[in-house]
Amino acid sequence: MMTRRVVVSLSGGMDSTAVLAEALDRGYDVLAVGFTYGSKHNTYENAAAINVAEHYNVPFTLIPLTAVARHLKSNLLIDGGDIPEGHYEEETMSQTVVPGRNMIFASILAGIAWSNDADSVWMGVHSGDHAIYPDCRPDFVDAMNEAMQLGTDERIHLETPFLHANKTSVIDGCDRYNVPWHLTRTCYKDQPIACGKCGSCQERLEAFAANSIEDPIGYETREIMQKGS
Amino acid sequence: MMTRRVVVSLSGGMDSTAVLAEALDRGYDVLAVGFTYGSKHNTYENAAAINVAEHYNVPFTLIPLTAVARHLKSNLLIDGGDIPEGHYEEETMSQTVVPGRNMIFASILAGIAWSNDADSVWMGVHSGDHAIYPDCRPDFVDAMNEAMQLGTDERIHLETPFLHANKTSVIDGCDRYNVPWHLTRTCYKDQPIACGKCGSCQERLEAFAANSIEDPIGYETREIMQKGS
Repeated sequence: MMTRRVVVSLSGGMDSTAVLAEALDRGYDVLAVGFTYGSKHNTYENAAAINVAEHYNVPFTLIPLTAVARHLKSNLLIDGGDIPEGHYEEETMSQTVVPGRNMIFASILAGIAWSNDADSVWMGVHSGDHAIYPDCRPDFVDAMNEAMQLGTDERIHLETPFLHANKTSVIDGCDRYNVPWHLTRTCYKDQPIACGKCGSCQERLEAFAANSIEDPIGYETREIMQKGS
Repeated sequence: MMTRRVVVSLSGGMDSTAVLAEALDRGYDVLAVGFTYGSKHNTYENAAAINVAEHYNVPFTLIPLTAVARHLKSNLLIDGGDIPEGHYEEETMSQTVVPGRNMIFASILAGIAWSNDADSVWMGVHSGDHAIYPDCRPDFVDAMNEAMQLGTDERIHLETPFLHANKTSVIDGCDRYNVPWHLTRTCYKDQPIACGKCGSCQERLEAFAANSIEDPIGYETREIMQKGS
């Protein structure tokens, strides 16, 4: 039987790294693809993706989308406002939505999957994203999977193994994979060390604490905030 | 009442030009967006889009996607094989499919529409595309529209006014708009004058002939082929 080939969207964050670990654990032939799109943390995130791909010895392609992102508005991007701080489900976190980002990534990855005889696109969206990011919710994922299958003549489908998991259970579920969390980047801010205060850092800190595991990366602060506090 | 703002995908071809004419006729505030993606006819197509936008005095943005297209395989692209000749519904024409192209365009345009307070993305797909291009078929368009609406929290939807029309009826329906067909580019080949032999030229020649209108652009040959001939 031929080994399945899959395309993994690898941002350098924890969730996409976990998806990569999962796909490799199943023995699939993986092409990892990331994007530069002018986010404040892109330099650090891209470096993390390169290190993770190197760790797993998988081919990694980094595709520049800065010319696209120039026409998108978000505080996550270099020319946007400040990154909000607080719980990851706070309404203010919607300032970090990049309009259409996951839809754009999914579409490009489907084209790349088709062109490279892969059968699917794997993305690390999970339930922690659902509150803020419309293109990470299950109903979007279902519709996008349908569009992807129809738009590729049933060649490519979308897989999101952690769609209904939260970050805490992603860490828990990856226990047996020995995922290199120390190589991953989560903070949204434009600085080398994680701030610990943005919604993204807060979600990560909460997830490690819930697993009683020490997060191996450095932070400016590790204090966990409650929603609405 | 506020004027509706819409984003029109403008390639410089006849169908997207007709969509632009339609949106302007309805009095909408239009942002026209095109892409460079390394197709053999991109230089001519992009120039046509610029001229059409200039003709209508609408803002036009050209977004480079060559770094994405480098990872896609198609004879339409500069590094692909020869453009096939013959009827536009011949099986050989599927060599000109660019994997995921319209899905990618639609996704990016949705992000741009959201970022610019538009309410929809308009694309010129029509029934002549259905045989060969999976991401131009009605079932794909329905699924993509669903994904787009869910992925943008119901802000943006997809409109395809000619989805069930063929090129002949697009020309017929545009009669009252005085569309500048002479500015549009249809040929898929890497040459300034239309070849008249590729599927795209053939479909155009057939459509003008069926309307008993002389196509105002120049061709190497204007002979119309039958399907299967």
